[in-house]
Amino acid sequence: MTLPHPESSAAPGDSGLLHFAHVAVIGKYQAAGAQQAVDEIAHFLQQQGCAVSLEQETAANTGLTQYPALNVNAMASACDLALVVGGDGTMLGIGRQLAQGGLPLVGINQGRLGFITDIALGEYRAKLGPILHGHYEEEARDLMAASVWRDDRVVFQATALNDVVVNRGGAAHMIELRVEVDGHFVANQRADGLIIASPTGSTAYALSAGGPLLHPAIGGWVMVPIAPHTLSNRPIVLPSTCEVSVTIVAGHDASANFDMQSLTSLLHGDRIVVRRSAHTLRLLHPVGWSYYDTLRKKLHWNEGA
Amino acid sequence: MTLPHPESSAAPGDSGLLHFAHVAVIGKYQAAGAQQAVDEIAHFLQQQGCAVSLEQETAANTGLTQYPALNVNAMASACDLALVVGGDGTMLGIGRQLAQGGLPLVGINQGRLGFITDIALGEYRAKLGPILHGHYEEEARDLMAASVWRDDRVVFQATALNDVVVNRGGAAHMIELRVEVDGHFVANQRADGLIIASPTGSTAYALSAGGPLLHPAIGGWVMVPIAPHTLSNRPIVLPSTCEVSVTIVAGHDASANFDMQSLTSLLHGDRIVVRRSAHTLRLLHPVGWSYYDTLRKKLHWNEGA
Amino acid sequence: MTLPHPESSAAPGDSGLLHFAHVAVIGKYQAAGAQQAVDEIAHFLQQQGCAVSLEQETAANTGLTQYPALNVNAMASACDLALVVGGDGTMLGIGRQLAQGGLPLVGINQGRLGFITDIALGEYRAKLGPILHGHYEEEARDLMAASVWRDDRVVFQATALNDVVVNRGGAAHMIELRVEVDGHFVANQRADGLIIASPTGSTAYALSAGGPLLHPAIGGWVMVPIAPHTLSNRPIVLPSTCEVSVTIVAGHDASANFDMQSLTSLLHGDRIVVRRSAHTLRLLHPVGWSYYDTLRKKLHWNEGA
Amino acid sequence: MTLPHPESSAAPGDSGLLHFAHVAVIGKYQAAGAQQAVDEIAHFLQQQGCAVSLEQETAANTGLTQYPALNVNAMASACDLALVVGGDGTMLGIGRQLAQGGLPLVGINQGRLGFITDIALGEYRAKLGPILHGHYEEEARDLMAASVWRDDRVVFQATALNDVVVNRGGAAHMIELRVEVDGHFVANQRADGLIIASPTGSTAYALSAGGPLLHPAIGGWVMVPIAPHTLSNRPIVLPSTCEVSVTIVAGHDASANFDMQSLTSLLHGDRIVVRRSAHTLRLLHPVGWSYYDTLRKKLHWNEGA
Repeated sequence: MTLPHPESSAAPGDSGLLHFAHVAVIGKYQAAGAQQAVDEIAHFLQQQGCAVSLEQETAANTGLTQYPALNVNAMASACDLALVVGGDGTMLGIGRQLAQGGLPLVGINQGRLGFITDIALGEYRAKLGPILHGHYEEEARDLMAASVWRDDRVVFQATALNDVVVNRGGAAHMIELRVEVDGHFVANQRADGLIIASPTGSTAYALSAGGPLLHPAIGGWVMVPIAPHTLSNRPIVLPSTCEVSVTIVAGHDASANFDMQSLTSLLHGDRIVVRRSAHTLRLLHPVGWSYYDTLRKKLHWNEGA
Repeated sequence: MTLPHPESSAAPGDSGLLHFAHVAVIGKYQAAGAQQAVDEIAHFLQQQGCAVSLEQETAANTGLTQYPALNVNAMASACDLALVVGGDGTMLGIGRQLAQGGLPLVGINQGRLGFITDIALGEYRAKLGPILHGHYEEEARDLMAASVWRDDRVVFQATALNDVVVNRGGAAHMIELRVEVDGHFVANQRADGLIIASPTGSTAYALSAGGPLLHPAIGGWVMVPIAPHTLSNRPIVLPSTCEVSVTIVAGHDASANFDMQSLTSLLHGDRIVVRRSAHTLRLLHPVGWSYYDTLRKKLHWNEGA
Repeated sequence: MTLPHPESSAAPGDSGLLHFAHVAVIGKYQAAGAQQAVDEIAHFLQQQGCAVSLEQETAANTGLTQYPALNVNAMASACDLALVVGGDGTMLGIGRQLAQGGLPLVGINQGRLGFITDIALGEYRAKLGPILHGHYEEEARDLMAASVWRDDRVVFQATALNDVVVNRGGAAHMIELRVEVDGHFVANQRADGLIIASPTGSTAYALSAGGPLLHPAIGGWVMVPIAPHTLSNRPIVLPSTCEVSVTIVAGHDASANFDMQSLTSLLHGDRIVVRRSAHTLRLLHPVGWSYYDTLRKKLHWNEGA
Repeated sequence: MTLPHPESSAAPGDSGLLHFAHVAVIGKYQAAGAQQAVDEIAHFLQQQGCAVSLEQETAANTGLTQYPALNVNAMASACDLALVVGGDGTMLGIGRQLAQGGLPLVGINQGRLGFITDIALGEYRAKLGPILHGHYEEEARDLMAASVWRDDRVVFQATALNDVVVNRGGAAHMIELRVEVDGHFVANQRADGLIIASPTGSTAYALSAGGPLLHPAIGGWVMVPIAPHTLSNRPIVLPSTCEVSVTIVAGHDASANFDMQSLTSLLHGDRIVVRRSAHTLRLLHPVGWSYYDTLRKKLHWNEGA
């Protein structure tokens, strides 16, 4: 892959004061071409007058040594913008960690358009310039704070940007889950599993299992049963101010997934509790960006004039 | 149908001060047994020390003349509680009208449990007493303010508690609708029609068409296409702070429905606009009422201990 | 649109005896470019040694006078192959009529690949040659024989290749339909309508309403309710040897559609009866054609190596 | 539970010649009350003039020693009818084994009505009498013959009455499966798994995953993806004369289930092949039995007059 015009000097919006002085760059670790893309973008940022640091593992993987390498915590305190070069998965991984520090993110996709990596690699020069100078649209994405309780003790904690999933073991038959919301009994569900997805996660696994799309500004989660035994066990959208609790009632080898992280070998009586995290993920988009444009393109809806 | 213990004097919670001094009673007009139910409930309310008025048509239909008969506007200004005896449909009809005056409603179902008429006729004495004395749980339900635009003029306006539906004529094939949210193009949808449902309406038509359940506290609508041509045109939950606009692009004999009211013979270019109403429907429930209990019973989910 | 190599003489498979001596050509009536496409294909057929006739309306619409013009009945008796240039809709219209005469069809799509018009216009020379000489794969598609009964009399009869649909009027609310199969009561369904689709129709309206795909060799119909009130009213696949009967029980302005033809103003008690037609549609495909290839391309399934 | 009138002598239809002279009785092994039910039914059969044997494990579990105990093979050769007392699960287990011998089955449900155990325990006397004398309706259910291939060798074989399921491991993310039918490539599917269900299995797991109902006389299987990544990967009904092949392309800890039996730790390249078994399950029902009555009751469809 060749990036367009790397030596061109003038990018739109590069006059005036910089809004973000120190930018961290994170690359997709295993991707071919990551080294070149990260290098060119870092170079471009410097041209724009920004200080540039690389996230530690990105630096190690690309072998780029001319930029300071920072770990996530150091990035959160030293930088004022994080630029992620990769796909939605890369954003998901780093976003969860950066959300605590309040660092805003911009996503540049290396291949296909992502739901949250909305700047194409080929147009980063035109799109990044204005953002660096303060012209952008900001969006906050809710995160889930999940914990697993066993015998009145928390045995696991995780933050999830997409979803929390409880599911049966591979060879097992159904699992039975007791669902409560704010202490109220909702139902005992027999199913392959249960997905609790944020608006961000509503375009991922939850969509495959029959859930609706949730606009990012909806303050809610969607709870989607996977292959439920009872046909009227439909997806339900719950306020994110609720505490959702899912207890393993029956079934073997149940596991819980929090985005990428898994906790296996759950026991009967184990309880997964989901609350809204105190932190949100700050996403910056080019001015004129529209959530609906992204949906339409990603889901191949027919486009009108 | 015989109501239990009409002459029993002591109902729970009937000591102390009345929270609601003047109660309006509305009955389901055509229902058999409505006369007896309305009379006994009105009598019970008087025993509790309340002034009682009947809604005008209820008075005419039941032939009960011993209570003042008021029209909806008079009810809204004179009374401080409305008691609806009937089903969800009765609540839907009167609720839309009363919402503007801010009068809270209590629903007593005459037959099967309703989604919003949650007190069984057989237990009205036990449940109403505490409510009359101020012991209740209050819930606000969002309403939709819909308007139909033709050639830059509003040709129709309506308020809907359940849903706004745009659909094709009966003999026509598909309709094509252009959807915009807050001025952003979303998609051109070819389908039998499109439902925009409130949380209250999410358990009605929208559910049949494949939509999710929305908790009443979700500040959003769900937009559900009916038999969409494009398989990825999935239900989407939008913030109720948005303005949703649906324009008829193609198809014959399209019509729009606002709860019960219909507007037929829509033309190409006609635009249905949905906003959140300034008013909400105030529903009062007995203490200990749970939305999830109602869902579980109505949808026949399996009940755990 | 320019067709490739109109004057090239040798097409694959043009040696040996002709399997089809007299070919009828049918064009999509309103399509731009239809005249040129029909002319070139007719010319090609003559070069191959075939006698060529044009369907009457095709001749009139294209203004091509150098070929005999035949009506559908004459085509069925005089010709031994029908070549349809257009889309699935064109095939649907003419196929229903030709099925009675047993004339086999080949479909050439003028734009996008169709489910049953599987030869691209650009490759007609390479694909038609072998077919004309007897190298093809033949497939039989079941047709539905539908009748509408009122007061013990048949008031309407139609043949359908795709589907028979019973639905509510545009402004009406639900319709209620009593379904019986071979005289056995199945259910009273309250819904927007009911689709009975053949395997050919299973990729059309029935798919939008939530039905499964049916392989053309399945001797069955799928009955799909549209937005059913009862969530467990799921699509059901019935043997095509059954007699399916749908009676209008409640609802206003119901109508029935048989592919393109509509019968409106159905009354309570009207009964739509669907049986398998004595005729089948004979489709010819190039050798190596695969039903699954068509599905995969039309439904944009991810393609493996 | 007490059975009605155990000492009553005359049951309907007990005159005339016996159609089934030697009946095997199979009970649900762990069920409370199984001993009493099996004993009373066996006694009733003897009163009717039948020879009675107990299936070996049933005899051991109930402790009933007054009837000969036979293993499944001996039953198939010695008896001419098998009477299963239990639920659908019991029928599923024994039916698969008995199908090879061609022994017909009658199902008596001990609790709720089953899809294939359609005689209530309380009415066995009235319903069994006529069946024993040859008055019954017979139905044949297709069975699946499945095999697992690894490196060109069959490593596992099983017969399934309900379904063959290939799925991902519990903690794994998606699985990728290459589907071929009769050697034709269909699609690479990324999903939680894939269900291939018979008409009998179409009311079980496949229904939960979004599949249609298949009438038992449909000569086909339905292939239903579980939570497919691609939204257009819809259920498809395939002729049971086809050979369906599913190859593990990607994903960890995949497993395959054949009704109750599981094969875990599948490897990349492993191929599950499904064909129609040479045997069918013969089910006998009382005269007047209707498949649609069972569906309507089990799925709680609204019942018309």
